[in-house]
Amino acid sequence: MPGAMTQPAHRATPEFPTIAIVGVGLIGGSLAAAIKRRNLARTVIGVGRDSTRLAQARTCGLIDEGTIDPAIAAGVADLLVFCTPVDRIVSGIRAAATACRPGTLITDAGSVKGVICRELATGLPAGVEFVGSHPLAGSEKQGFDHADAELFANRVCVLTPTEATPRPAVDRIRRFWEGLGSSVLEISPEAHDRALAETSHLPHLVAAALAAVLAPENARLAASGFRDTTRIAGGDPELWAAILLANADPVLAGLQKYEESLTAFRRAVAERDSQRLKELLAQARARREALGPGLQ
Amino acid sequence: MPGAMTQPAHRATPEFPTIAIVGVGLIGGSLAAAIKRRNLARTVIGVGRDSTRLAQARTCGLIDEGTIDPAIAAGVADLLVFCTPVDRIVSGIRAAATACRPGTLITDAGSVKGVICRELATGLPAGVEFVGSHPLAGSEKQGFDHADAELFANRVCVLTPTEATPRPAVDRIRRFWEGLGSSVLEISPEAHDRALAETSHLPHLVAAALAAVLAPENARLAASGFRDTTRIAGGDPELWAAILLANADPVLAGLQKYEESLTAFRRAVAERDSQRLKELLAQARARREALGPGLQ
Repeated sequence: MPGAMTQPAHRATPEFPTIAIVGVGLIGGSLAAAIKRRNLARTVIGVGRDSTRLAQARTCGLIDEGTIDPAIAAGVADLLVFCTPVDRIVSGIRAAATACRPGTLITDAGSVKGVICRELATGLPAGVEFVGSHPLAGSEKQGFDHADAELFANRVCVLTPTEATPRPAVDRIRRFWEGLGSSVLEISPEAHDRALAETSHLPHLVAAALAAVLAPENARLAASGFRDTTRIAGGDPELWAAILLANADPVLAGLQKYEESLTAFRRAVAERDSQRLKELLAQARARREALGPGLQ
Repeated sequence: MPGAMTQPAHRATPEFPTIAIVGVGLIGGSLAAAIKRRNLARTVIGVGRDSTRLAQARTCGLIDEGTIDPAIAAGVADLLVFCTPVDRIVSGIRAAATACRPGTLITDAGSVKGVICRELATGLPAGVEFVGSHPLAGSEKQGFDHADAELFANRVCVLTPTEATPRPAVDRIRRFWEGLGSSVLEISPEAHDRALAETSHLPHLVAAALAAVLAPENARLAASGFRDTTRIAGGDPELWAAILLANADPVLAGLQKYEESLTAFRRAVAERDSQRLKELLAQARARREALGPGLQ
C-alpha cells in the first residue's frame, strides 16, 4: 500500500482519551511530554496556579489546554495525575474528585504514599477511584522548562494499591505507566514509605548535611566526588521539607541506622584501625555494587 | 608549502623527554594516555609489580616500555610520577631517587600531601627534587583498562610545594600538568589536607556509611539519587583506607562538623519543625549551588 508509511493509520481510542496533569512542574511537564510523544491521550490538560505559565506550556506544545480551575479539568478528564507537592495532593484530589464523572481514575506522583493512601481510602465519590503511584524518576532541577519526555522510560514506578482498591483500576494505572516505558512494582503504601525513607529520603538528608558543611573557600577543591555525593541537595527545600515530614518516622529510623553506620567508620579512623576500616569500606562497596548497573 | 598539513613538523624537544609512571592503574594509565595523546614525552615508561599487566599496557600502546624495577626507570627518566597508593609513595620515591640522575624531577598523584611532603623534605639525593601534586580527578573504577586520556583535562591539579622547594622545579611541574589541560593551584600541604578532608575524604565516609545501610531487599527501589550519593563508595577499600588514615585528624574534624550538621537536620525532622527544616535545606542548597556548574 503506497504511502502507508507516511499516512498515520487511524489510531484506536486510547485508554484515557483525556488526561489532566495537575501541577505542571518538572514531573508534570515531563509526564505531559511523555504522554504526547507516545500518543497515550488525545488531549492533555495542564492544571496549574499560574495562567501565564500554563499559556507558555501550551505555546510550547507541552499541553493542549491549560486551566487554573481543577474542576474544569476534572469534569472532562478520564485520568487525573496529581504532580503537586506531597502536602497538597490529598486536599487537591478531594476537591477535584467532586467534579469527576463516574469511571474517572485519579493517580499521583508523590514521593510519600502512606498518608496519602490512608486519607484517600474513604470519601471519594462513587465510581471515582484513586491508585497511588510513585515514579522513581526526577531531577534536582525544577519547572517544565526542564521537562524530559523520556524521564519515566526504563525507570521503576511503584503502585501502592490498598486492599480496597479495585483490581481493574490498578491494572489500568499499571498500563498507563508501562505505556510510558516504566517498569511497574506493586507494594503496600507502608512498605513503600519504609523503603523510600532508606533509598531516597535519608540520602537527601545525608547529601544536604554534607553540602551544608562545605566551607566556601574550599569550593574550588570540590571535584566530581563531592559534586555527585551532594547533587540531590540542590533540590527544592519546600518540596523536600514536605516529603521528609510526611514520612518522618521511617526517615528518623533510617537516620538512626545511618548514624550508627557512620559511628563505626569514625571509630575505625579514630583508632587508626586499618583492618577494620578496610572491612567497613569493603562491605559498603559490596552493597553499592549489588545495585548493579541500573535500569538506564 | 604543499603537504605541510599532513607532514608532522619536527617537534621541539619536550620538557621531559622520558617520563616514568610508577603504578599503572587508573590514574597512572590515564596519565600515560594523556601524555602520549599530547606528545608531552618521547618515551613513557611504566613501572609496576606485575610484568604480565605491564606487557598488556605496552601491547595496547599505553606505555612504550615496562619494567618491574623502579631503579631502571629512574636511571633514564627526566620525570617520575608516582601513582601508587598513598601509603607506598614515600618509600617508593626514596628507593627510586637513589637511582636518579641529578636534574631529575619527581612528583606524585597522592590524595594526601602533608605526610608525603614532610617525609620527602629531606634525604633525597642532591639535584633530585620532589614536588607534591594532587590531580583532582579520578573514578571509582580501577585499572588501566579504564584509562582516560582526558581525565585531567579541565580539572584542578593542586601542587603543594614547601618553602624549601626550588621555584624552577615547581614551575616545571606546573607546566607538566597544564600541558595535560589541568588548571593548577598551589597551596601548602597542610592546607591541602584540611580542604581535601572536607571535599573528598569526608564525602567518601558519608557515601560509604550510607551504602552500608541499604537493605538488599530495597535495592530495586534505589534510583538515581541513591546511586549518585553513593557512587564513590564503589572505590577500592585498600586505597581509601590508606588515604583516610594518612589524613586522619583533618578527616575526624570534618566528620565532627558533619555529625553536628546532621544532628540539626535530625532535630528539625523529629520536632516536625517545617520552617527550620526548610531553612536548613535552603542553606544546603545555597552551598551546593555555590559550586557552580564545575570545570567540565
